[in-house]
Amino acid sequence: MSLTVVGSIAFDTVRTPFGERERMLGGSATHFSLAASFFDEVRMVGPVGEDFGDEEYAVLHARGVNTDDIERVSGGETFFWRGHYEYDLNTAHTDETRLNVFGEFQPKLSEASRAAETLFLANIQPDLQREVREQCEGARLAGLDSMNLWIEIARDALVRTIGGVDLVFMNDAEIRMLCKEPNLVRAARQLMDMGPRAVVAKQGEYGARLFTRESIFSLPAYPLETVNDPTGAGDSFAGGFLGYLSSQGGADADDEAMRRAMAYGSVLASFNVEEFGTERVRRLTRDEIEGRYGELVEMTRLEAVAAA
Amino acid sequence: MSLTVVGSIAFDTVRTPFGERERMLGGSATHFSLAASFFDEVRMVGPVGEDFGDEEYAVLHARGVNTDDIERVSGGETFFWRGHYEYDLNTAHTDETRLNVFGEFQPKLSEASRAAETLFLANIQPDLQREVREQCEGARLAGLDSMNLWIEIARDALVRTIGGVDLVFMNDAEIRMLCKEPNLVRAARQLMDMGPRAVVAKQGEYGARLFTRESIFSLPAYPLETVNDPTGAGDSFAGGFLGYLSSQGGADADDEAMRRAMAYGSVLASFNVEEFGTERVRRLTRDEIEGRYGELVEMTRLEAVAAA
Repeated sequence: MSLTVVGSIAFDTVRTPFGERERMLGGSATHFSLAASFFDEVRMVGPVGEDFGDEEYAVLHARGVNTDDIERVSGGETFFWRGHYEYDLNTAHTDETRLNVFGEFQPKLSEASRAAETLFLANIQPDLQREVREQCEGARLAGLDSMNLWIEIARDALVRTIGGVDLVFMNDAEIRMLCKEPNLVRAARQLMDMGPRAVVAKQGEYGARLFTRESIFSLPAYPLETVNDPTGAGDSFAGGFLGYLSSQGGADADDEAMRRAMAYGSVLASFNVEEFGTERVRRLTRDEIEGRYGELVEMTRLEAVAAA
Repeated sequence: MSLTVVGSIAFDTVRTPFGERERMLGGSATHFSLAASFFDEVRMVGPVGEDFGDEEYAVLHARGVNTDDIERVSGGETFFWRGHYEYDLNTAHTDETRLNVFGEFQPKLSEASRAAETLFLANIQPDLQREVREQCEGARLAGLDSMNLWIEIARDALVRTIGGVDLVFMNDAEIRMLCKEPNLVRAARQLMDMGPRAVVAKQGEYGARLFTRESIFSLPAYPLETVNDPTGAGDSFAGGFLGYLSSQGGADADDEAMRRAMAYGSVLASFNVEEFGTERVRRLTRDEIEGRYGELVEMTRLEAVAAA
């Protein structure tokens, strides 16, 4: 199967209590693509400027990511984000955002990208997400991510966009906020009533829950002793999840495959945050992924008991 | 096996966004005992005043809790707590505390209570916890709970007390605070270095993690659509956990029994918070407990995958 992602491509300058880096390769589409690339063919769509060069392309090509639909804007500069984290690594503090070429981004997908059976709409303006969804008529499985900003300033657009996708990946706080419902179980059900058949509620260091109409699956986060930079954790999660699911039949994957997808998402996110930017994932191996997957299986194993 | 708990017995006046109740039977020893009573014999130790009467004893006796070591202080009044919760049910706001007889509490355990093989030191002043631990020479498995207040004003005493127990039940934020280490995995290891062989990190609505020297087990909280009153959730968790573990050999229980104890703790906490005070747990049945345990098994089931 094939998988297309549309989202941001960025240079990130990040400071955490454990170090700092300048102008690292980042952006939602980047983190998603690198994570997904371990499982399936990925086509990455997004705009970059003239400052985006061979070094950045090389990182993507080394993982086999197809970059044909990365639009390089003449005279433009790549989206730039500068931020920091305190000891509470769950909250990113933005110090500077320069949208640059991303501010004028009008997604134009090639026929090959439109033909993907699985589509991920990373966190961009909801109307743009919907335009992309409409371009990809052949996508039988579409997922999206969003954020509090769009809930605040473009809620109606976001709800319409959600109506056209199958899977929603959002933080639990954002799901509560969007649905104006403090209880997560009820909020997730309301979200499915808008259209999607599943909701992945990301819970940071605590893990994630998968809600479908029939069941709930809960997975703790892989317990890490070292977290250096949480930037891109959510996109790495979605990349691991959808990359794996796409390799298992995408829209035809069953409930068991969705559970395994949750675990692969969690594993990819865990590697992503151990070092800065894409440092860890770019030298990751499938064996390391399977090793950590196995640890998650062992760590969550709970036996049934005979009736009392 | 037998199980003794020493802690507070209280009247609680609680207001949440979903209702309010006045002078309900509460306190850490009460919530613990009711939860543990589904699995093993429980002896409850703590002080009450003359206002503690037949109605309150009847709730405990209906669940078979042994109340012989509840000390009724002549002319005294029972510990009283008044508090409220906002929509964020994870945080209790205290409006009024009257220690009453609890302020002068000097635990005097009968021979029968001292003879218990399993002991739980609910959240009271750490020096008192240590005195009780020393009285219970025969206890081969001792657990304790604590709170941020004691970390702030009696850290050294708490560390000494922790040195004498086998299991610590604390919120993850408290574990971080006690160990001055923001990473939970490292903090839990430091806590074990103080003496205990296992640490249960409670994570509220997210679940709990069990750390031992050999492994980590993670369990999500049972997903509830209705949470009316979180008071006593932690003590119900500890009661379900230690009650079950005591029934499985206490100190001799193996790692698998510890995992099941985590799940029973989670199940008891989930029932506790669905209604106010002890309302739900007092009419709970073992069948309902086993039903929810089975749901947790299903909800966390993750299969291994063949190597890629």
